[in-house]
Amino acid sequence: MFKALHHSICWRAAIPSTLLHSKSFLLGSQMDLSTTSSHMSKFLFRQLFEKESSTYTYLLADVSHPDKPALLIDPVDRTVDRDLSLVKDLGLKLIYAINTHVHADHITGTGLIKTKAPAVKSIISKASNSKADILVQSGDKIYFGDLFLEVRATPGHTVGCVTYVTGEGPEQPQPRMAFTGDAVLIRGCGRTDFQGGSSETLYKSVHSQIFTLPKDTLIYPAHDYRGFTVSTVGEEMLYNPRLTKDEETFKNIMANLNLAYPKMMDIAVPANMVCGFQDPTPNKAC
Amino acid sequence: MFKALHHSICWRAAIPSTLLHSKSFLLGSQMDLSTTSSHMSKFLFRQLFEKESSTYTYLLADVSHPDKPALLIDPVDRTVDRDLSLVKDLGLKLIYAINTHVHADHITGTGLIKTKAPAVKSIISKASNSKADILVQSGDKIYFGDLFLEVRATPGHTVGCVTYVTGEGPEQPQPRMAFTGDAVLIRGCGRTDFQGGSSETLYKSVHSQIFTLPKDTLIYPAHDYRGFTVSTVGEEMLYNPRLTKDEETFKNIMANLNLAYPKMMDIAVPANMVCGFQDPTPNKAC
Repeated sequence: MFKALHHSICWRAAIPSTLLHSKSFLLGSQMDLSTTSSHMSKFLFRQLFEKESSTYTYLLADVSHPDKPALLIDPVDRTVDRDLSLVKDLGLKLIYAINTHVHADHITGTGLIKTKAPAVKSIISKASNSKADILVQSGDKIYFGDLFLEVRATPGHTVGCVTYVTGEGPEQPQPRMAFTGDAVLIRGCGRTDFQGGSSETLYKSVHSQIFTLPKDTLIYPAHDYRGFTVSTVGEEMLYNPRLTKDEETFKNIMANLNLAYPKMMDIAVPANMVCGFQDPTPNKAC
Repeated sequence: MFKALHHSICWRAAIPSTLLHSKSFLLGSQMDLSTTSSHMSKFLFRQLFEKESSTYTYLLADVSHPDKPALLIDPVDRTVDRDLSLVKDLGLKLIYAINTHVHADHITGTGLIKTKAPAVKSIISKASNSKADILVQSGDKIYFGDLFLEVRATPGHTVGCVTYVTGEGPEQPQPRMAFTGDAVLIRGCGRTDFQGGSSETLYKSVHSQIFTLPKDTLIYPAHDYRGFTVSTVGEEMLYNPRLTKDEETFKNIMANLNLAYPKMMDIAVPANMVCGFQDPTPNKAC
Protein backbone atom coordinates (compact mmCIF):
# COMPACT_ATOMS: atom_id res chain seq x y z
CA MET A 1 0.00 0.00 0.00
CA PHE A 2 0.90 3.58 -0.35
CA LYS A 3 1.39 6.01 2.49
CA ALA A 4 4.12 8.48 1.54
CA LEU A 5 3.73 10.87 4.44
CA HIS A 6 6.59 12.30 6.47
CA HIS A 7 9.03 10.16 4.57
CA SER A 8 8.23 11.96 1.36
CA ILE A 9 9.24 15.24 2.93
CA CYS A 10 12.68 13.86 3.75
CA TRP A 11 13.05 12.45 0.25
CA ARG A 12 11.96 15.65 -1.35
CA ALA A 13 14.64 17.59 0.49
CA ALA A 14 17.20 15.64 -1.49
CA ILE A 15 16.03 16.53 -4.98
CA PRO A 16 17.14 19.45 -7.11
CA SER A 17 14.85 22.44 -6.87
CA THR A 18 14.41 22.41 -10.64
CA LEU A 19 12.57 19.11 -10.32
CA LEU A 20 10.43 20.27 -7.45
CA HIS A 21 9.11 23.43 -9.01
CA SER A 22 8.60 22.55 -12.64
CA LYS A 23 5.06 23.19 -13.77
CA SER A 24 2.93 20.28 -14.80
CA PHE A 25 0.44 20.01 -17.62
CA LEU A 26 -2.89 18.34 -17.52
CA LEU A 27 -3.49 16.00 -20.41
CA GLY A 28 -6.97 14.63 -20.61
CA SER A 29 -9.77 14.14 -18.17
CA GLN A 30 -9.31 13.17 -14.53
CA MET A 31 -11.15 9.93 -15.01
CA ASP A 32 -10.65 7.58 -12.11
CA LEU A 33 -10.02 4.26 -13.74
CA SER A 34 -8.05 3.03 -10.73
CA THR A 35 -6.02 0.97 -13.12
CA THR A 36 -2.61 -0.31 -12.25
CA SER A 37 -0.32 -2.50 -14.24
CA SER A 38 2.58 -3.42 -12.11
CA HIS A 39 3.85 -4.25 -8.70
CA MET A 40 2.00 -1.79 -6.47
CA SER A 41 -1.65 -0.97 -6.32
CA LYS A 42 -0.95 2.74 -6.73
CA PHE A 43 1.86 2.60 -9.27
CA LEU A 44 0.82 2.56 -12.90
CA PHE A 45 3.33 1.19 -15.36
CA ARG A 46 3.05 0.63 -19.09
CA GLN A 47 5.63 -0.66 -21.55
CA LEU A 48 5.16 0.49 -25.16
CA PHE A 49 6.94 -0.71 -28.28
CA GLU A 50 7.99 1.09 -31.48
CA LYS A 51 8.41 -1.63 -34.07
CA GLU A 52 10.65 0.03 -36.67
CA SER A 53 13.52 0.78 -34.26
CA SER A 54 12.50 -1.90 -31.72
CA THR A 55 12.42 0.80 -29.04
CA TYR A 56 10.62 0.52 -25.72
CA THR A 57 8.97 3.59 -24.25
CA TYR A 58 7.89 3.46 -20.62
CA LEU A 59 5.00 5.26 -18.95
CA LEU A 60 5.12 5.56 -15.16
CA ALA A 61 2.63 7.34 -12.94
CA ASP A 62 1.67 7.76 -9.31
CA VAL A 63 -2.08 7.21 -9.48
CA SER A 64 -2.50 7.60 -5.72
CA HIS A 65 -1.54 11.27 -6.01
CA PRO A 66 -4.46 13.63 -6.75
CA ASP A 67 -2.74 14.90 -9.91
CA LYS A 68 -1.73 11.43 -11.18
CA PRO A 69 1.66 12.78 -12.29
CA ALA A 70 3.32 10.74 -15.02
CA LEU A 71 6.53 10.56 -16.99
CA LEU A 72 7.63 8.94 -20.23
CA ILE A 73 11.07 7.39 -20.64
CA ASP A 74 12.53 7.22 -24.16
CA PRO A 75 9.53 8.28 -26.25
CA VAL A 76 9.92 7.96 -30.05
CA ASP A 77 8.78 10.69 -32.44
CA ARG A 78 6.70 8.29 -34.54
CA THR A 79 4.63 7.10 -31.56
CA VAL A 80 4.07 10.35 -29.68
CA ASP A 81 0.39 10.53 -30.61
CA ARG A 82 -0.16 6.98 -29.37
CA ASP A 83 1.60 7.76 -26.09
CA LEU A 84 -0.25 11.01 -25.46
CA SER A 85 -3.56 9.35 -26.29
CA LEU A 86 -2.86 6.69 -23.66
CA VAL A 87 -1.87 9.37 -21.12
CA LYS A 88 -5.19 11.08 -21.82
CA ASP A 89 -7.26 7.86 -21.61
CA LEU A 90 -5.72 7.06 -18.24
CA GLY A 91 -6.39 10.56 -16.91
CA LEU A 92 -2.71 11.20 -16.14
CA LYS A 93 -0.84 14.48 -15.97
CA LEU A 94 2.35 14.13 -17.98
CA ILE A 95 5.10 16.16 -16.33
CA TYR A 96 8.37 14.77 -17.74
CA ALA A 97 9.63 13.36 -21.05
CA ILE A 98 12.96 11.73 -20.34
CA ASN A 99 15.80 10.22 -22.38
CA THR A 100 18.31 7.68 -21.16
CA HIS A 101 20.80 8.97 -23.77
CA VAL A 102 21.22 10.56 -27.20
CA HIS A 103 19.85 7.80 -29.40
CA ALA A 104 21.44 6.98 -32.74
CA ASP A 105 18.73 4.76 -34.20
CA HIS A 106 15.56 6.82 -33.89
CA ILE A 107 14.45 10.38 -33.18
CA THR A 108 13.34 11.06 -29.64
CA GLY A 109 9.77 12.15 -29.07
CA THR A 110 10.56 14.62 -26.30
CA GLY A 111 10.62 17.71 -28.53
CA LEU A 112 7.40 16.75 -30.30
CA ILE A 113 5.70 16.10 -26.96
CA LYS A 114 6.62 19.61 -25.86
CA THR A 115 5.01 21.12 -28.95
CA LYS A 116 1.78 19.29 -28.09
CA ALA A 117 2.01 19.71 -24.31
CA PRO A 118 4.23 22.74 -23.66
CA ALA A 119 4.33 22.42 -19.87
CA VAL A 120 6.01 19.01 -20.05
CA LYS A 121 9.70 19.25 -19.10
CA SER A 122 12.34 17.35 -21.05
CA ILE A 123 15.13 15.63 -19.15
CA ILE A 124 18.48 14.21 -20.26
CA SER A 125 21.87 13.88 -18.60
CA LYS A 126 24.21 16.85 -18.30
CA ALA A 127 27.02 14.60 -19.53
CA SER A 128 25.20 14.08 -22.85
CA ASN A 129 25.99 17.71 -23.72
CA SER A 130 22.47 18.02 -25.12
CA LYS A 131 19.71 20.54 -24.64
CA ALA A 132 16.77 19.85 -22.34
CA ASP A 133 14.75 21.67 -19.71
CA ILE A 134 16.40 19.72 -16.93
CA LEU A 135 19.89 18.23 -17.01
CA VAL A 136 20.46 15.48 -14.49
CA GLN A 137 23.50 13.76 -13.07
CA SER A 138 24.30 10.79 -10.88
CA GLY A 139 22.47 10.86 -7.57
CA ASP A 140 19.66 13.17 -8.67
CA LYS A 141 16.13 12.10 -7.94
CA ILE A 142 13.22 12.71 -10.30
CA TYR A 143 9.95 12.83 -8.39
CA PHE A 144 6.50 12.11 -9.84
CA GLY A 145 4.03 12.34 -6.97
CA ASP A 146 5.45 10.37 -4.07
CA LEU A 147 7.44 8.06 -6.31
CA PHE A 148 10.84 8.84 -7.73
CA LEU A 149 13.53 7.71 -10.12
CA GLU A 150 17.15 7.74 -9.04
CA VAL A 151 19.72 8.74 -11.69
CA ARG A 152 22.79 6.53 -12.11
CA ALA A 153 25.53 7.48 -14.56
CA THR A 154 26.19 4.47 -16.80
CA PRO A 155 28.41 5.77 -19.64
CA GLY A 156 30.03 3.47 -22.18
CA HIS A 157 27.48 3.07 -24.98
CA THR A 158 27.57 6.86 -25.16
CA VAL A 159 29.40 9.31 -22.93
CA GLY A 160 26.15 10.59 -21.43
CA CYS A 161 24.15 7.40 -20.82
CA VAL A 162 22.25 7.16 -17.56
CA THR A 163 20.11 4.48 -15.98
CA TYR A 164 16.96 5.50 -14.14
CA VAL A 165 16.12 3.27 -11.17
CA THR A 166 12.89 3.36 -9.20
CA GLY A 167 13.39 4.51 -5.63
CA GLU A 168 14.48 2.47 -2.66
CA GLY A 169 12.04 2.35 0.19
CA PRO A 170 8.97 0.55 1.47
CA GLU A 171 6.58 2.80 -0.43
CA GLN A 172 8.40 2.58 -3.75
CA PRO A 173 7.76 -0.16 -6.36
CA GLN A 174 8.97 -3.60 -5.37
CA PRO A 175 10.97 -5.14 -6.90
CA ARG A 176 12.91 -2.12 -8.10
CA MET A 177 12.98 -1.35 -11.83
CA ALA A 178 16.04 -0.19 -13.79
CA PHE A 179 15.54 1.59 -17.11
CA THR A 180 18.94 0.85 -18.54
CA GLY A 181 18.76 2.43 -21.99
CA ASP A 182 21.40 0.66 -24.10
CA ALA A 183 23.80 0.01 -21.20
CA VAL A 184 22.30 -3.40 -20.48
CA LEU A 185 20.08 -5.04 -23.08
CA ILE A 186 18.42 -8.40 -22.44
CA ARG A 187 21.24 -10.90 -23.00
CA GLY A 188 23.26 -8.13 -24.67
CA CYS A 189 24.45 -4.52 -24.45
CA GLY A 190 24.73 -1.45 -26.64
CA ARG A 191 27.66 -1.01 -29.02
CA THR A 192 30.57 1.14 -27.84
CA ASP A 193 32.16 2.34 -31.08
CA PHE A 194 30.75 5.87 -31.44
CA GLN A 195 29.38 8.89 -29.51
CA GLY A 196 32.15 8.73 -26.93
CA GLY A 197 31.56 5.03 -26.41
CA SER A 198 34.09 2.89 -24.56
CA SER A 199 33.85 -0.81 -23.79
CA GLU A 200 36.04 -0.38 -20.72
CA THR A 201 33.77 2.37 -19.40
CA LEU A 202 30.61 0.39 -20.17
CA TYR A 203 31.93 -2.66 -18.33
CA LYS A 204 32.74 -0.59 -15.25
CA SER A 205 29.39 1.23 -15.41
CA VAL A 206 27.34 -1.95 -15.56
CA HIS A 207 29.28 -3.79 -12.86
CA SER A 208 29.36 -0.84 -10.45
CA GLN A 209 25.95 0.76 -11.08
CA ILE A 210 23.57 -1.96 -12.30
CA PHE A 211 24.87 -5.36 -11.19
CA THR A 212 25.12 -4.01 -7.63
CA LEU A 213 21.33 -3.55 -7.49
CA PRO A 214 19.24 -6.28 -5.83
CA LYS A 215 19.10 -9.37 -8.04
CA ASP A 216 15.34 -9.19 -8.42
CA THR A 217 15.56 -5.66 -9.88
CA LEU A 218 13.68 -5.67 -13.17
CA ILE A 219 15.69 -4.58 -16.19
CA TYR A 220 13.73 -2.61 -18.75
CA PRO A 221 16.01 -1.75 -21.69
CA ALA A 222 15.56 0.83 -24.45
CA HIS A 223 15.43 -1.91 -27.08
CA ASP A 224 14.91 -5.57 -27.68
CA TYR A 225 15.22 -7.22 -31.07
CA ARG A 226 14.03 -10.73 -30.18
CA GLY A 227 10.75 -10.08 -28.41
CA PHE A 228 11.88 -10.12 -24.79
CA THR A 229 10.20 -7.45 -22.70
CA VAL A 230 12.00 -7.61 -19.36
CA SER A 231 14.84 -9.30 -17.51
CA THR A 232 16.34 -9.03 -14.04
CA VAL A 233 19.73 -8.12 -12.65
CA GLY A 234 20.12 -11.71 -11.42
CA GLU A 235 19.37 -13.15 -14.85
CA GLU A 236 21.80 -10.85 -16.69
CA MET A 237 24.52 -11.55 -14.11
CA LEU A 238 24.14 -15.23 -14.97
CA TYR A 239 23.25 -15.30 -18.65
CA ASN A 240 24.33 -12.11 -20.39
CA PRO A 241 26.70 -13.49 -23.03
CA ARG A 242 28.91 -10.38 -22.95
CA LEU A 243 28.72 -8.84 -19.51
CA THR A 244 29.29 -12.08 -17.61
CA LYS A 245 32.77 -12.29 -19.12
CA ASP A 246 35.90 -10.77 -17.54
CA GLU A 247 36.75 -7.24 -18.61
CA GLU A 248 39.43 -8.16 -21.16
CA THR A 249 37.20 -10.73 -22.88
CA PHE A 250 34.37 -8.20 -22.92
CA LYS A 251 36.58 -5.58 -24.52
CA ASN A 252 37.65 -8.09 -27.17
CA ILE A 253 34.06 -9.02 -27.92
CA MET A 254 33.08 -5.37 -28.29
CA ALA A 255 36.11 -4.59 -30.46
CA ASN A 256 35.17 -7.32 -32.91
CA LEU A 257 31.46 -6.88 -33.45
CA ASN A 258 31.98 -5.48 -36.97
CA LEU A 259 28.64 -3.72 -36.93
CA ALA A 260 27.39 -1.61 -39.81
CA TYR A 261 27.19 2.17 -39.45
CA PRO A 262 23.70 2.93 -38.05
CA LYS A 263 21.51 4.08 -40.90
CA MET A 264 19.75 6.73 -38.78
CA MET A 265 22.96 7.96 -37.12
CA ASP A 266 23.59 11.15 -39.10
CA ILE A 267 19.98 12.25 -38.80
CA ALA A 268 19.13 11.03 -35.32
CA VAL A 269 22.14 12.12 -33.29
CA PRO A 270 22.14 15.83 -34.23
CA ALA A 271 18.35 15.93 -33.83
CA ASN A 272 18.43 14.16 -30.49
CA MET A 273 20.97 16.61 -29.11
CA VAL A 274 18.10 19.10 -29.25
CA CYS A 275 15.19 16.88 -28.17
CA GLY A 276 14.40 15.56 -31.63
CA PHE A 277 14.37 18.66 -33.78
CA GLN A 278 16.48 21.69 -34.59
CA ASP A 279 15.37 24.29 -32.15
CA PRO A 280 14.86 27.61 -33.97
CA THR A 281 15.74 29.62 -30.88
CA PRO A 282 19.45 29.53 -30.02
CA ASN A 283 20.24 28.77 -26.38
CA LYS A 284 16.63 27.97 -25.61
CA ALA A 285 16.06 24.67 -23.85
CA CYS A 286 14.06 22.36 -26.07
CA MET B 1 2.16 -13.44 -0.16
CA PHE B 2 1.58 -16.97 -0.99
CA LYS B 3 0.05 -19.59 1.26
CA ALA B 4 -2.00 -21.98 -0.86
CA LEU B 5 -2.62 -24.61 1.81
CA HIS B 6 -5.96 -26.20 2.54
CA HIS B 7 -7.64 -23.93 0.03
CA SER B 8 -5.66 -25.46 -2.78
CA ILE B 9 -7.05 -28.87 -1.92
CA CYS B 10 -10.58 -27.56 -2.35
CA TRP B 11 -9.67 -25.89 -5.61
CA ARG B 12 -7.98 -28.97 -6.92
CA ALA B 13 -11.08 -31.01 -6.33
CA ALA B 14 -12.78 -28.93 -9.02
CA ILE B 15 -10.35 -29.50 -11.85
CA PRO B 16 -10.50 -32.25 -14.48
CA SER B 17 -8.41 -35.28 -13.61
CA THR B 18 -6.57 -34.96 -16.93
CA LEU B 19 -5.08 -31.71 -15.71
CA LEU B 20 -4.14 -33.08 -12.32
CA HIS B 21 -2.29 -36.14 -13.48
CA SER B 22 -0.51 -35.05 -16.60
CA LYS B 23 3.21 -35.62 -16.37
CA SER B 24 5.52 -32.67 -16.32
CA PHE B 25 8.90 -32.25 -17.93
CA LEU B 26 11.94 -30.66 -16.42
CA LEU B 27 13.53 -28.12 -18.71
CA GLY B 28 16.80 -26.79 -17.45
CA SER B 29 18.51 -26.58 -14.11
CA GLN B 30 16.71 -25.82 -10.86
CA MET B 31 18.57 -22.58 -10.38
CA ASP B 32 16.94 -20.44 -7.74
CA LEU B 33 16.93 -16.99 -9.26
CA SER B 34 13.94 -15.96 -7.16
CA THR B 35 12.92 -13.72 -9.99
CA THR B 36 9.43 -12.42 -10.36
CA SER B 37 8.04 -10.07 -12.90
CA SER B 38 4.54 -9.25 -11.93
CA HIS B 39 2.09 -8.62 -9.19
CA MET B 40 2.97 -11.29 -6.62
CA SER B 41 6.29 -12.22 -5.18
CA LYS B 42 5.83 -15.87 -6.08
CA PHE B 43 4.23 -15.51 -9.47
CA LEU B 44 6.56 -15.22 -12.44
CA PHE B 45 5.16 -13.64 -15.56
CA ARG B 46 6.80 -12.80 -18.86
CA GLN B 47 5.33 -11.33 -22.01
CA LEU B 48 7.14 -12.22 -25.24
CA PHE B 49 6.65 -10.78 -28.72
CA GLU B 50 6.92 -12.32 -32.18
CA LYS B 51 7.45 -9.43 -34.54
CA GLU B 52 6.41 -10.88 -37.91
CA SER B 53 2.86 -11.75 -36.82
CA SER B 54 2.79 -9.27 -33.89
CA THR B 55 1.89 -12.15 -31.60
CA TYR B 56 2.29 -12.14 -27.83
CA THR B 57 3.30 -15.33 -26.07
CA TYR B 58 2.94 -15.47 -22.29
CA LEU B 59 5.00 -17.43 -19.79
CA LEU B 60 3.45 -17.99 -16.37
CA ALA B 61 4.96 -19.96 -13.50
CA ASP B 62 4.48 -20.66 -9.82
CA VAL B 63 8.01 -20.15 -8.50
CA SER B 64 6.98 -20.81 -4.90
CA HIS B 65 6.24 -24.44 -5.79
CA PRO B 66 9.25 -26.78 -5.55
CA ASP B 67 8.89 -27.80 -9.22
CA LYS B 68 8.39 -24.23 -10.51
CA PRO B 69 5.69 -25.44 -12.91
CA ALA B 70 5.16 -23.19 -15.92
CA LEU B 71 2.92 -22.81 -18.94
CA LEU B 72 3.10 -20.96 -22.23
CA ILE B 73 0.05 -19.33 -23.79
CA ASP B 74 0.03 -18.90 -27.60
CA PRO B 75 3.61 -19.86 -28.45
CA VAL B 76 4.69 -19.26 -32.08
CA ASP B 77 6.69 -21.83 -34.05
CA ARG B 78 9.40 -19.31 -35.04
CA THR B 79 10.15 -18.37 -31.42
CA VAL B 80 9.98 -21.75 -29.70
CA ASP B 81 13.76 -21.92 -29.19
CA ARG B 82 13.75 -18.46 -27.57
CA ASP B 83 10.90 -19.46 -25.28
CA LEU B 84 12.42 -22.77 -24.23
CA SER B 85 15.76 -21.10 -23.62
CA LEU B 86 14.09 -18.63 -21.26
CA VAL B 87 12.25 -21.45 -19.48
CA LYS B 88 15.61 -23.17 -19.00
CA ASP B 89 17.38 -20.01 -17.80
CA LEU B 90 14.68 -19.43 -15.20
CA GLY B 91 14.85 -23.03 -13.99
CA LEU B 92 11.17 -23.67 -14.70
CA LYS B 93 9.39 -26.92 -15.49
CA LEU B 94 7.21 -26.36 -18.53
CA ILE B 95 4.08 -28.46 -18.20
CA TYR B 96 1.56 -26.94 -20.62
CA ALA B 97 1.63 -25.27 -24.06
CA ILE B 98 -1.75 -23.65 -24.55
CA ASN B 99 -3.62 -21.97 -27.38
CA THR B 100 -6.45 -19.49 -27.04
CA HIS B 101 -7.74 -20.56 -30.47
CA VAL B 102 -6.81 -21.89 -33.92
CA HIS B 103 -4.74 -19.00 -35.23
CA ALA B 104 -4.99 -17.93 -38.87
CA ASP B 105 -1.94 -15.66 -39.03
CA HIS B 106 0.91 -17.77 -37.69
CA ILE B 107 1.71 -21.38 -36.88
CA THR B 108 1.41 -22.33 -33.23
CA GLY B 109 4.52 -23.53 -31.43
CA THR B 110 2.78 -26.17 -29.35
CA GLY B 111 3.60 -29.08 -31.66
CA LEU B 112 7.23 -28.04 -32.01
CA ILE B 113 7.54 -27.66 -28.24
CA LYS B 114 6.32 -31.23 -27.82
CA THR B 115 8.99 -32.54 -30.19
CA LYS B 116 11.63 -30.83 -28.01
CA ALA B 117 9.99 -31.50 -24.64
CA PRO B 118 7.74 -34.53 -25.11
CA ALA B 119 6.21 -34.48 -21.63
CA VAL B 120 4.68 -31.05 -22.17
CA LYS B 121 0.92 -31.30 -22.72
CA SER B 122 -0.82 -29.23 -25.37
CA ILE B 123 -4.15 -27.60 -24.56
CA ILE B 124 -6.86 -26.08 -26.74
CA SER B 125 -10.63 -25.80 -26.47
CA LYS B 126 -12.86 -28.76 -27.29
CA ALA B 127 -15.03 -26.38 -29.34
CA SER B 128 -12.10 -25.66 -31.68
CA ASN B 129 -12.46 -29.22 -33.04
CA SER B 130 -8.65 -29.49 -33.01
CA LYS B 131 -6.25 -32.07 -31.70
CA ALA B 132 -4.39 -31.57 -28.42
CA ASP B 133 -3.49 -33.59 -25.35
CA ILE B 134 -6.11 -31.83 -23.26
CA LEU B 135 -9.33 -30.30 -24.57
CA VAL B 136 -10.86 -27.71 -22.26
CA GLN B 137 -14.22 -26.06 -21.98
CA SER B 138 -15.84 -23.25 -20.07
CA GLY B 139 -15.40 -23.56 -16.31
CA ASP B 140 -12.34 -25.83 -16.43
CA LYS B 141 -9.36 -24.87 -14.33
CA ILE B 142 -5.77 -25.35 -15.44
CA TYR B 143 -3.45 -25.66 -12.46
CA PHE B 144 0.26 -24.87 -12.44
CA GLY B 145 1.47 -25.33 -8.89
CA ASP B 146 -0.95 -23.55 -6.60
CA LEU B 147 -1.99 -21.08 -9.25
CA PHE B 148 -4.60 -21.70 -11.90
CA LEU B 149 -6.21 -20.37 -15.04
CA GLU B 150 -9.95 -20.43 -15.43
CA VAL B 151 -11.32 -21.20 -18.90
CA ARG B 152 -14.02 -18.93 -20.30
CA ALA B 153 -15.62 -19.66 -23.67
CA THR B 154 -15.43 -16.49 -25.78
CA PRO B 155 -16.39 -17.56 -29.34
CA GLY B 156 -16.98 -15.06 -32.12
CA HIS B 157 -13.56 -14.51 -33.72
CA THR B 158 -13.51 -18.27 -34.18
CA VAL B 159 -16.03 -20.83 -32.99
CA GLY B 160 -13.56 -22.27 -30.46
CA CYS B 161 -11.97 -19.15 -28.92
CA VAL B 162 -11.47 -19.18 -25.18
CA THR B 163 -10.12 -16.63 -22.71
CA TYR B 164 -7.86 -17.85 -19.89
CA VAL B 165 -8.27 -15.84 -16.69
CA THR B 166 -6.02 -16.11 -13.64
CA GLY B 167 -7.81 -17.50 -10.63
CA GLU B 168 -9.99 -15.67 -8.17
CA GLY B 169 -8.81 -15.76 -4.58
CA PRO B 170 -6.46 -14.10 -2.11
CA GLU B 171 -3.51 -16.27 -3.12
CA GLN B 172 -3.92 -15.77 -6.85
CA PRO B 173 -2.38 -12.86 -8.82
CA GLN B 174 -3.93 -9.49 -8.12
CA PRO B 175 -5.23 -7.82 -10.19
CA ARG B 176 -6.53 -10.72 -12.26
CA MET B 177 -5.17 -11.22 -15.77
CA ALA B 178 -7.24 -12.19 -18.82
CA PHE B 179 -5.50 -13.74 -21.83
CA THR B 180 -8.12 -12.86 -24.36
CA GLY B 181 -6.63 -14.20 -27.60
CA ASP B 182 -8.29 -12.25 -30.43
CA ALA B 183 -11.63 -11.76 -28.62
CA VAL B 184 -10.55 -8.42 -27.13
CA LEU B 185 -7.54 -6.64 -28.57
CA ILE B 186 -6.30 -3.35 -27.12
CA ARG B 187 -8.76 -0.79 -28.53
CA GLY B 188 -9.91 -3.41 -31.02
CA CYS B 189 -11.06 -7.01 -31.53
CA GLY B 190 -10.45 -9.92 -33.86
CA ARG B 191 -12.26 -10.13 -37.20
CA THR B 192 -15.36 -12.31 -37.39
CA ASP B 193 -15.59 -13.25 -41.07
CA PHE B 194 -14.10 -16.77 -41.11
CA GLN B 195 -13.52 -19.93 -39.02
CA GLY B 196 -17.07 -19.94 -37.68
CA GLY B 197 -16.76 -16.30 -36.71
CA SER B 198 -19.83 -14.24 -35.81
CA SER B 199 -19.96 -10.61 -34.75
CA GLU B 200 -23.14 -11.23 -32.78
CA THR B 201 -21.51 -14.10 -30.90
CA LEU B 202 -18.31 -12.11 -30.25
CA TYR B 203 -20.28 -9.20 -28.85
CA LYS B 204 -22.17 -11.46 -26.46
CA SER B 205 -18.97 -13.31 -25.46
CA VAL B 206 -17.07 -10.17 -24.60
CA HIS B 207 -19.90 -8.50 -22.72
CA SER B 208 -20.84 -11.62 -20.74
CA GLN B 209 -17.42 -13.20 -20.13
CA ILE B 210 -14.80 -10.43 -20.17
CA PHE B 211 -16.47 -7.11 -19.40
CA THR B 212 -18.01 -8.72 -16.32
CA LEU B 213 -14.57 -9.22 -14.78
CA PRO B 214 -13.29 -6.64 -12.24
CA LYS B 215 -12.37 -3.41 -14.01
CA ASP B 216 -8.75 -3.62 -12.95
CA THR B 217 -8.36 -7.02 -14.64
CA LEU B 218 -5.37 -6.79 -16.96
CA ILE B 219 -6.08 -7.65 -20.59
CA TYR B 220 -3.26 -9.45 -22.35
CA PRO B 221 -4.25 -10.09 -25.98
CA ALA B 222 -2.75 -12.47 -28.55
CA HIS B 223 -1.66 -9.54 -30.74
CA ASP B 224 -1.01 -5.87 -30.83
CA TYR B 225 -0.05 -3.97 -33.95
CA ARG B 226 0.66 -0.55 -32.43
CA GLY B 227 3.04 -1.38 -29.59
CA PHE B 228 0.64 -1.57 -26.68
CA THR B 229 1.43 -4.41 -24.30
CA VAL B 230 -1.50 -4.45 -21.90
CA SER B 231 -4.85 -2.86 -21.15
CA THR B 232 -7.55 -3.35 -18.55
CA VAL B 233 -11.20 -4.31 -18.61
CA GLY B 234 -12.05 -0.81 -17.36
CA GLU B 235 -10.11 0.84 -20.15
CA GLU B 236 -11.62 -1.28 -22.90
CA MET B 237 -15.12 -0.74 -21.52
CA LEU B 238 -14.50 3.00 -21.89
CA TYR B 239 -12.28 3.31 -24.95
CA ASN B 240 -12.58 0.26 -27.19
CA PRO B 241 -13.82 1.88 -30.43
CA ARG B 242 -15.85 -1.19 -31.42
CA LEU B 243 -16.93 -2.99 -28.29
CA THR B 244 -18.22 0.12 -26.51
CA LYS B 245 -20.88 0.48 -29.21
CA ASP B 246 -24.34 -1.09 -29.04
CA GLU B 247 -24.68 -4.53 -30.59
CA GLU B 248 -26.22 -3.39 -33.89
CA THR B 249 -23.54 -0.73 -34.44
CA PHE B 250 -20.86 -3.29 -33.60
CA LYS B 251 -22.28 -5.77 -36.12
CA ASN B 252 -22.31 -3.06 -38.77
CA ILE B 253 -18.70 -2.12 -38.04
CA MET B 254 -17.60 -5.74 -38.28
CA ALA B 255 -19.57 -6.31 -41.50
CA ASN B 256 -17.82 -3.41 -43.20
CA LEU B 257 -14.15 -3.88 -42.32
CA ASN B 258 -13.29 -5.00 -45.87
CA LEU B 259 -10.19 -6.84 -44.70
CA ALA B 260 -7.91 -8.76 -47.02
CA TYR B 261 -7.82 -12.55 -46.88
CA PRO B 262 -5.11 -13.46 -44.31
CA LYS B 263 -1.97 -14.43 -46.21
CA MET B 264 -1.12 -17.25 -43.78
CA MET B 265 -4.71 -18.56 -43.56
CA ASP B 266 -4.49 -21.58 -45.83
CA ILE B 267 -1.26 -22.76 -44.27
CA ALA B 268 -1.79 -21.81 -40.65
CA VAL B 269 -5.34 -22.99 -40.00
CA PRO B 270 -4.92 -26.62 -41.14
CA ALA B 271 -1.56 -26.80 -39.33
CA ASN B 272 -2.94 -25.27 -36.15
CA MET B 273 -5.79 -27.80 -36.04
CA VAL B 274 -3.04 -30.32 -35.26
CA CYS B 275 -0.78 -28.23 -32.97
CA GLY B 276 1.22 -26.66 -35.77
CA PHE B 277 2.11 -29.60 -37.96
CA GLN B 278 0.52 -32.55 -39.71
CA ASP B 279 0.69 -35.33 -37.18
CA PRO B 280 1.95 -38.50 -38.92
CA THR B 281 0.02 -40.74 -36.53
CA PRO B 282 -3.73 -40.69 -37.17
CA ASN B 283 -5.87 -40.18 -34.08
CA LYS B 284 -2.85 -39.44 -31.91
CA ALA B 285 -3.09 -36.25 -29.86
CA CYS B 286 -0.49 -33.79 -31.00
